[in-house]
This record gives sequence, C-alpha cells and structure tokens, in this order.
Amino acid sequence: MTNAATNGRRRNPKMSEVIARELATHIVEAGLAPGSVLPTEREMIESFAVGRATIREALRLLETRNVITIRPGPGGGPVVRRPRPCDLGEALSLILQFEDASLDDVMEARRALEPMIARLAAERISDAEIEVLDETVRLIEASPEDPEVFHEQNRTFHSTLCRAAHSVVLEVFLDSLASVADGVSGGVTYSPRRYLAAARMHATIVTALRARDGAAAEQAMREHMDETRAYWHKKYRDLASRPVVWRG
Amino acid sequence: MTNAATNGRRRNPKMSEVIARELATHIVEAGLAPGSVLPTEREMIESFAVGRATIREALRLLETRNVITIRPGPGGGPVVRRPRPCDLGEALSLILQFEDASLDDVMEARRALEPMIARLAAERISDAEIEVLDETVRLIEASPEDPEVFHEQNRTFHSTLCRAAHSVVLEVFLDSLASVADGVSGGVTYSPRRYLAAARMHATIVTALRARDGAAAEQAMREHMDETRAYWHKKYRDLASRPVVWRG
Repeated sequence: MTNAATNGRRRNPKMSEVIARELATHIVEAGLAPGSVLPTEREMIESFAVGRATIREALRLLETRNVITIRPGPGGGPVVRRPRPCDLGEALSLILQFEDASLDDVMEARRALEPMIARLAAERISDAEIEVLDETVRLIEASPEDPEVFHEQNRTFHSTLCRAAHSVVLEVFLDSLASVADGVSGGVTYSPRRYLAAARMHATIVTALRARDGAAAEQAMREHMDETRAYWHKKYRDLASRPVVWRG
Repeated sequence: MTNAATNGRRRNPKMSEVIARELATHIVEAGLAPGSVLPTEREMIESFAVGRATIREALRLLETRNVITIRPGPGGGPVVRRPRPCDLGEALSLILQFEDASLDDVMEARRALEPMIARLAAERISDAEIEVLDETVRLIEASPEDPEVFHEQNRTFHSTLCRAAHSVVLEVFLDSLASVADGVSGGVTYSPRRYLAAARMHATIVTALRARDGAAAEQAMREHMDETRAYWHKKYRDLASRPVVWRG
C-alpha cells in the first residue's frame, strides 16, 4: 500500500480508491505509455479479489482523473492515458470560479511566478535552450505584423524558459495558469508595435540568462510582467476583470 | 452558455458537461452554501429537457470534482458541497506522481512562491494581521519544546501571510503544495533549537512587513526558505527524495 494511503491523518479510503491508487502506481512504475492496454475488468476482479462494482468504481475514478480512458464495445476496456500537467488547469479553473477569481488574479500569479522561473533558469539553462530563446526573439522581430507568429514564439519563449528552470511543480503551475488564461482571453491580438516591445523585453531577459545572472533575469522578467500588466489594464480593462469559468 | 463553453479552440463538449457547467455557474451565482439542496434528478430531467443518463453523468462529473455530493436513499439527491482550494492538492499530487516528482520538488516550488507572497503581503497586510503573525512568533518562543505548538503556529503564520497577500491564485497554489507536502512528510518533528531558529526568522519577516518593505520581506523569506532547505537536506535527505504519491 502506498505512503499516502496509510497516512493516519486522512479518512479511511474506500476499497475502490485503494485499487485506483494501486493501478496508478503500477502505470507509473511500469512506465506504461499512453495507449497501453490494461487488464480487463474481469481479470481485475480476479486479481484484486473484489466485486465488479468496486472495480468499475476504481476505473471510473481513474477515468475522471485522466489516468485512463475506457474504450467502449467488445474488445474494449481500460487503456492508459496518463494525466498531463495541463490537466491541472481544469481543476484550477473550477476552484477559481468558486473563489470569484478574475483573469487579473490569474495574471498576478503569473507575474509572481515568471520572475522566479527566470531566476532559476539562469542557473540551469543550457546553451541550446538559450539559442531557442534567441530564435523566438528573431522570429517575432522578423514578422511583427503577424499575431500568429507572435503567439507561437511567445509561447515557445515562456515554455522553454520554464523547462530550463527544471522545476516540475512550477512548470505544472504555469501550464495550468496559461490554460486558464487562454480559456478566458483566447483570441485577443495586439499591435505590431506591442509585439516588438515584447520581443525587446525578451531579448533583455536572454542577455541576463546568457550571463547566468539570476538577479538580472528575475528583474528583467519582473519589468516585462509589470509593463505587460500596465498596458493590459490601460487597454483591456474589461478583459482583466473577466471571471474565470470552469472549463469542464 | 459560458465563455469557456463557446471557446472555439476546444473540442465540442458533451451535453452532460454543458449541464454540469451550468449547474456549477448556478451554484456560484446564486451563492448557494454547502449543504444547500439542489433540484432532484427528476426535476432536472424536466428543466434541462434531456434524458436520465445525461443528468446522471452531469451529476457524477460534479461529484468527482467535489462541487456536489449525492445523498443516497429515499429523500436523498444532489447537495452542494463546493470545491475547496485544498482540493487542488489532490489533482496536483496525481500529476506529480506521473511526473516522478519528489518532496524536494514540492519544497522548491514553495521556496519560489513564499518570497513573492511576502513581497505582496508587505503592500497589503493589515495591522491586525501583523498582530496575528507576531502572536505566532511569541507562542513558539514560549513553548519551543512542543512540536504541536510549533506546527500549528507555523501553519497560522504562513496562512495568515498568504491571505494578507490577497492573491487568490497563489493562495490556492500554496494550499495545494502544503497538502501535497503533508501527505509525504506528515509527522516529522524537529528540535526546540530548530523551532526557535524558525521563530527568529519569522520575526525578521514581521519586522519587514511592519515597515511595509516588500524587498526586505521577500529577502527575509527567501533566506528563511534557503536555510530551511539546507537544514532539511543535511538532516533528512531521505525525506527530500521521497516521491509524491497521489492521495486519491
């Protein structure tokens, strides 16, 4: 049984939850890739020595948590899916709807996290990753009139930086913030001048990263975030106050 | 229909998901408290003009997301629960288990977030909240030999500071980190000397907050986190490398 399952401070878990956790741990430890076929319901009933209702409840729980999908029909059954970092965005959007949070609250959290990411990345980023960042700046500068180029390169810039920080938890948090923000603000575009200004700020951050200067990278990112927020508040006040809604 | 539901970039939602979202929005907008009784399954079938299976699927989805509970038996039915910030910890622990994260990864994220919280709190904390923080320091100093006093006052210190930052998203993140960390490390105690050292660091943070000095509060919190981590790595290496396991 897992560490979490035996933690005395929690309520007694139901048998279906214990089985769900064992199956999740099995998938992780055996390194099963998405698409891997799991034993059938019948086989699980036998190997866990429990009733059909308990196995169904365990599989259902794993399905609602995106650990597996259940293929319908004859020859169907449980198949590995694996939860993804962006799945947290769904759970986050639900809680934030109940907490009356706005897009501005989401952006404030990003404003707090990104400078920390830049600081950590400065110590850990590889030369190859710095080249990727540099390329995103060049591509935006080459086509400042194209919102699609900006959005793709902006996303690559921030996700590359995030991976370079080697902090799996912060990466999951930022992924979930990005997915909540996209759900609220999706489709907004800005001017070429704005895109060039963002590229220049990105270039300043890259310079600090290249110098492995964590404090400077943090500071440059904070200025980038503050500046973006000020712009946003001036031009898109209504967007900032939009409520977060569960994406279901 | 909600903004998120009409966002063109997402797959077409199932009818049960649309209904689940409408029910969630209704609960938020009507301000229904936990325990409020929702319409029966039969009434929902009529008002949404869909079949029983669709309503059941919608209610089931809301139940797995902690929005409602379903009271069994005659006279039972859907009752409001409302998802809580700490519910994110469950979703987070699942994703982190699949990402092979350790307690150290969780603590690193906390180390990144807490200084930001201290910085924001310095601008926004009330005098009454500063008094609460002060009191936690005094209580630890008065009973440094009592781990329970330390753990309770330490929790109050960090949660009060977090609320004082008025950042709902960061609060949800820190709550979820705390619940994941508790699940992995629950029950570890330290020495009175250690508790006194923590209280002294808390006192330094309170001094910075009282001066409304964001940079100093951030720096003091960072030192507190760095120091705690160094101690931990020296004395509890095995604990730091413990894997995060889904709490189901």
